[in-house]
Amino acid sequence: MKKNKYQTLKGFRDFLPEEKRKRDFVLNSIKRTFERFGFEPIETPTLEYAELLLGKYGEEADKLVYTFKDRGNRNVGLRYDQTVPTARVIAKYNDILPKFFRRYQIGNVFRADKPQKGRYREFVQCDADIFGTTSPISDAEILSVYYSIYADLGFTTLKLSINDRQTLMQTLSNYTSTKVDIFSIIQSIDKLDKIGKESVKRELVKKGLTEKIATEAIKRLLLSRPSQNLQIIIDSTKKLGVPAKSLIFTPTLARGLDYYTGMIFEGKVGGYDVGSVGGGGRYDNLIEDLAGISKAAVGFGLGFDRTLEAAETLNLLPTSFSPAQVLVTIFSDKYINKSLDTIKRLRKAGISSEIYPETEDNLSKQLSLANKKAIPYVIIIGENELKQKNLSLKNMKTGKQESISLEQLITKLTP
Amino acid sequence: MKKNKYQTLKGFRDFLPEEKRKRDFVLNSIKRTFERFGFEPIETPTLEYAELLLGKYGEEADKLVYTFKDRGNRNVGLRYDQTVPTARVIAKYNDILPKFFRRYQIGNVFRADKPQKGRYREFVQCDADIFGTTSPISDAEILSVYYSIYADLGFTTLKLSINDRQTLMQTLSNYTSTKVDIFSIIQSIDKLDKIGKESVKRELVKKGLTEKIATEAIKRLLLSRPSQNLQIIIDSTKKLGVPAKSLIFTPTLARGLDYYTGMIFEGKVGGYDVGSVGGGGRYDNLIEDLAGISKAAVGFGLGFDRTLEAAETLNLLPTSFSPAQVLVTIFSDKYINKSLDTIKRLRKAGISSEIYPETEDNLSKQLSLANKKAIPYVIIIGENELKQKNLSLKNMKTGKQESISLEQLITKLTP
Repeated sequence: MKKNKYQTLKGFRDFLPEEKRKRDFVLNSIKRTFERFGFEPIETPTLEYAELLLGKYGEEADKLVYTFKDRGNRNVGLRYDQTVPTARVIAKYNDILPKFFRRYQIGNVFRADKPQKGRYREFVQCDADIFGTTSPISDAEILSVYYSIYADLGFTTLKLSINDRQTLMQTLSNYTSTKVDIFSIIQSIDKLDKIGKESVKRELVKKGLTEKIATEAIKRLLLSRPSQNLQIIIDSTKKLGVPAKSLIFTPTLARGLDYYTGMIFEGKVGGYDVGSVGGGGRYDNLIEDLAGISKAAVGFGLGFDRTLEAAETLNLLPTSFSPAQVLVTIFSDKYINKSLDTIKRLRKAGISSEIYPETEDNLSKQLSLANKKAIPYVIIIGENELKQKNLSLKNMKTGKQESISLEQLITKLTP
Repeated sequence: MKKNKYQTLKGFRDFLPEEKRKRDFVLNSIKRTFERFGFEPIETPTLEYAELLLGKYGEEADKLVYTFKDRGNRNVGLRYDQTVPTARVIAKYNDILPKFFRRYQIGNVFRADKPQKGRYREFVQCDADIFGTTSPISDAEILSVYYSIYADLGFTTLKLSINDRQTLMQTLSNYTSTKVDIFSIIQSIDKLDKIGKESVKRELVKKGLTEKIATEAIKRLLLSRPSQNLQIIIDSTKKLGVPAKSLIFTPTLARGLDYYTGMIFEGKVGGYDVGSVGGGGRYDNLIEDLAGISKAAVGFGLGFDRTLEAAETLNLLPTSFSPAQVLVTIFSDKYINKSLDTIKRLRKAGISSEIYPETEDNLSKQLSLANKKAIPYVIIIGENELKQKNLSLKNMKTGKQESISLEQLITKLTP
């Protein structure tokens, strides 16, 4: 193993304890929210037949799928997203899944993309969808669980931009031409938020619209109102508890992917200006295209890394995660039994604790391990403590030390 | 996508909600135990340089590593175990990791092995290790956390077979010859438990020992006593709370892998007779071999699928996992606001609940969804309920229905 081979592959990451704990904290919160809304977890394999993965996301995306021949000469590929494998699951298990199936899925996906700041080759995706119904209530449930994930993490500034892809298509269909098809217009419109009206107009003109028609298309879009169906969705979402000020009808919102058929949305966090933290919408034809089974669907994918970064930027994460609440010291074989017994009782009471492993190190070395690991309390057990039958408890933050019984200690630290 | 392509690759699995919940239940319990013992989580990438993975586990194992060339023409491979990537992490981050590093790691590993009952090509490994100390206290901590993982899951019948690899080597070194090296003898001895004394003797004779020497070697082993160091480990483990009856000194236990240097152990569950559920031991030279850094180590790998199967066999898992506690019905647009408001309040109180998405279905259809999903309670909101301001709560198990206020309902169901 050469020295440089201690590196990960470009675009792949090691997570050391501090970072891993932050990730687990956010992931656990997301899971709890999904569960509270009645979403059920599923898991699909990391590796699938390449045939399943290719030709599903467009030619450009196909180049980003990790594919190879396995030792049995099968063409296989690494999970690229969670929608395609879920479509396969729905096709395979359609008979036993509930009519209205709400599932969430949290897993790593792989893309052979050019790595850059915030873009990795292996990253976590959190998806939730409701299958089997076109009811606007299910659209509202999706918006509501999405909002609640952020609210539960402590975000108070989440805004959902919402639009109706069908209305958008109807409006824009007046401006298409033989030269410019509607999805090409949609792709330009999608950038309105980022690059502004003038740049989008220039782009549309470049694509072949006249300046007059481009101007008119944008103007008409900006003036349009929510469809009746979208209004029901928005009203229901409010009744489910999402504040009106967080639901922004955004007639120019387009979303890049061409498979959406109804409501579309994107989440943005105030105070964290790097675009959307995720989004989704209704896609009633995709499952049929993918898996040959007619199945209405509405859902979203949440950008986990961006959400974590936003939470850190806004100081929503605990300031420190310690591996243990207590470090129990250990001095010479004479006191060791008392140390072992103490840690047994602490753990029995559910208090996360670890014992210093070596008997020869002096107190200052043992305290410095607690410091290094950010363990807030140290129990000292030596000659005096053995005589007095009490323990010495040192608070590593204040430096104060007190004599305390084991029972008092347990009461004090029980989580 | 052809019909047969809805299948997973052989040896890979889909987990539908019921199975996934069982897995999450056991995984969460394991994580909590690790945390209570002060073990810290890390994560390494699914994909690594192939060079890191190959030549580490022996020639036979190398054939089981999934390797391929990525689009940048790098030789890469899928995670085969968690020890080698952890050795890489220790080499890379040695300066910032604590002197005594206790880490756990739960992740999927991949082996291009022949699939058979209970053996998969992608499966979960749960590892824990303490690095940086040769103290017998750390061996005892490892045995103790291993035992507690099972105790916390409700196993009352876990037995740990324990031995000292060094003593075993010393004893066996008297019986080696130019024909038969010590690791070859160890590999046969390791089968004593499975195939019995006579078969092992025959195997050793086949390998080149005389019948007399083979008999003598087995006899000597069976008569040997724990080394002083192993006795300290066993005593300390007892003081940490592991019952004496669960700690079985087993002088013939060998463990197949040749890198162990001290204490070795295996866990077995009474009432679930498919061999070991996992094991480990001390390996003070491996990290240096792998990563060029001298680092004592003791730890284990736990077989997650076997542990889950044992827990199911012994009925230690909850009998049903429902996606939600409550299904709120929905009838016509007249009552919908009340339904939406009710579900908002239930979720606010932390009660996991879902709403029936379609307004046109009759009560019996809505109840059957609850049945299908094993949701224990249904709230019915219709004309009467709107008048009386109370809700109707149907217990799906007993079939009984009662009139109840929202506040009473929340008190009743708060977890």
